[in-house]
Amino acid sequence: MKKIMNHPAQIVSQMLSGLLYANEERLAGIQDTGVVYRKKNSPGKVAIVSGGGSGHEPAHTGFVGEGMLAACICGPIFVPPTPEEILQGIQIADQGAGVFLVIKNFEKDVSNFLAAKEQALEAGYQVEHVIVNDDCSIEEHTFKKRRRGVAGTVFVQKILAAAAEAGYSLSKLKELGQKVVMATNTLGVALSPSVVPGENTLRFQLAENEISFGIGIHGEPGYRTEPLHSSERLAIELVNKLKSQFNWQKGDQFAMMVNGLGGTPLMELFVFSNDVRRLLALEGINISFKKVGNFMTSNDMAGLSLTFLKIAEPEWLDWLKAPADTYAW
Amino acid sequence: MKKIMNHPAQIVSQMLSGLLYANEERLAGIQDTGVVYRKKNSPGKVAIVSGGGSGHEPAHTGFVGEGMLAACICGPIFVPPTPEEILQGIQIADQGAGVFLVIKNFEKDVSNFLAAKEQALEAGYQVEHVIVNDDCSIEEHTFKKRRRGVAGTVFVQKILAAAAEAGYSLSKLKELGQKVVMATNTLGVALSPSVVPGENTLRFQLAENEISFGIGIHGEPGYRTEPLHSSERLAIELVNKLKSQFNWQKGDQFAMMVNGLGGTPLMELFVFSNDVRRLLALEGINISFKKVGNFMTSNDMAGLSLTFLKIAEPEWLDWLKAPADTYAW
Repeated sequence: MKKIMNHPAQIVSQMLSGLLYANEERLAGIQDTGVVYRKKNSPGKVAIVSGGGSGHEPAHTGFVGEGMLAACICGPIFVPPTPEEILQGIQIADQGAGVFLVIKNFEKDVSNFLAAKEQALEAGYQVEHVIVNDDCSIEEHTFKKRRRGVAGTVFVQKILAAAAEAGYSLSKLKELGQKVVMATNTLGVALSPSVVPGENTLRFQLAENEISFGIGIHGEPGYRTEPLHSSERLAIELVNKLKSQFNWQKGDQFAMMVNGLGGTPLMELFVFSNDVRRLLALEGINISFKKVGNFMTSNDMAGLSLTFLKIAEPEWLDWLKAPADTYAW
Repeated sequence: MKKIMNHPAQIVSQMLSGLLYANEERLAGIQDTGVVYRKKNSPGKVAIVSGGGSGHEPAHTGFVGEGMLAACICGPIFVPPTPEEILQGIQIADQGAGVFLVIKNFEKDVSNFLAAKEQALEAGYQVEHVIVNDDCSIEEHTFKKRRRGVAGTVFVQKILAAAAEAGYSLSKLKELGQKVVMATNTLGVALSPSVVPGENTLRFQLAENEISFGIGIHGEPGYRTEPLHSSERLAIELVNKLKSQFNWQKGDQFAMMVNGLGGTPLMELFVFSNDVRRLLALEGINISFKKVGNFMTSNDMAGLSLTFLKIAEPEWLDWLKAPADTYAW
């Protein structure tokens, strides 16, 4: 399990140092914290702030920049940042119109971000939040687990950031954020487990030809393991599961993200995108906006996730298409 | 060796179909060929055209777009396109001021691109070319092999394309291209061999903790195999080898690319970038332009390459920084 690193205990701080160096015209950080913020602010506009555990790069540092996040806060690998660090992120991001937090739906992420929000409110900041739970692999009526926040989080961040740039207030962003979250579903498939730097055991096992549907982004196992047949079969499984979530009608309009989980070449993401294209053409579904690449990874996990966002308002599409000066959008 | 694909014989055509779908606002293709071209042209400007075997995604389709390549021609995996297809690429890219070919220095790439150039000249097109040979792992006085064209090719493409956009003629581009190629050196290290879809044998072997310095992008083995110690040790080896190529002086100005070979997470590329940063600070070398990410891959190979381009003229930096509307620059 070879990794290009020095000591595992330093991997996140050295990554942050390297990425601030690589993006020094665009990004800055608060020393000895996981806070990364953009150098060009939008005075008088609500600042969109997100974050979570590391290991999902480019999420979330790759989405900090003009037109997108004002700041993000990076924790250790697969561990959310502390409330204290999140508070520092809120403080540096605020431009006088309040801070809006985009939180992925994991228990510890939610509790740390909400604790920071309470502290910020007490300190006189205006703060609102939305919790993203796009992962539809977990059906709430059969599992006690909650729907997790995964790749669809990036669409939520993009839309909210462009709306903030267009002058949306905190309360309007709250309403919009809830609508966009409700309209977003994601499902993933792993070809290999993620190798966490410094860990010697895998969080789940897959045989040589096996894949697992419905995996999470922190090594959570999926809902079904089966042999890998073809890209087309993967597309059929994911598209059908997403179809049942949306109960879509011919002519419905969607944004789509094909997200690599870290170890899958772009060639394979495009082959899969082509299979999705053919299935959607049969369904009569219009994809008005598409992203294919690595956005929300799980270290070096091979596999991908498919996200659909139902475009309920024409502005959502404009906001997805609005310019963003980041290293990964 | 799990791959998200259908039949290996169809993987390139299905990839192209998927990537044209994902980028339909920006890119188009010529049916049943590997030609991908941009929809928005620059009339009266020289068109920069490149290409080669597939398996290096995002190279080169990810660099086709306004401000960068006018077209690229994709062959089968690790096999260059035919002269006939390259000719079709030249024909569709030409905007009346001629076509400039950026060719990676592999025997078959050079012969196919030059054959297409001859055919195009006979048909009345104006065509010039440059051959990129940035890989400094091969020392010409000890090996009969030529220096290969690898990740530095992307810097050459970007500078030439921005110069073409600024009105450079074919002959001025030829002169500029040769200067930029001479100023570019790249060295790579593999942590794992590349798995070519449809092939059942690896082109070289590495033991569990071994790495190989100086590997190529088509499974060519490197110049030395040794155990992996740390990111810092990798950075020392690559920076020192590149330093000896440039014989650099304190205060010299460079552009840098840290290029993932396909299977290495962004986190590790940033950790490595941080080690390079520290070494260059000791050397007093200024990096005025930086790119960190996957640009020229070798399927799912784990590892990275480091490219330095010595900035000889201030315009080179402007051209690197000029906007480009592509999916991967």
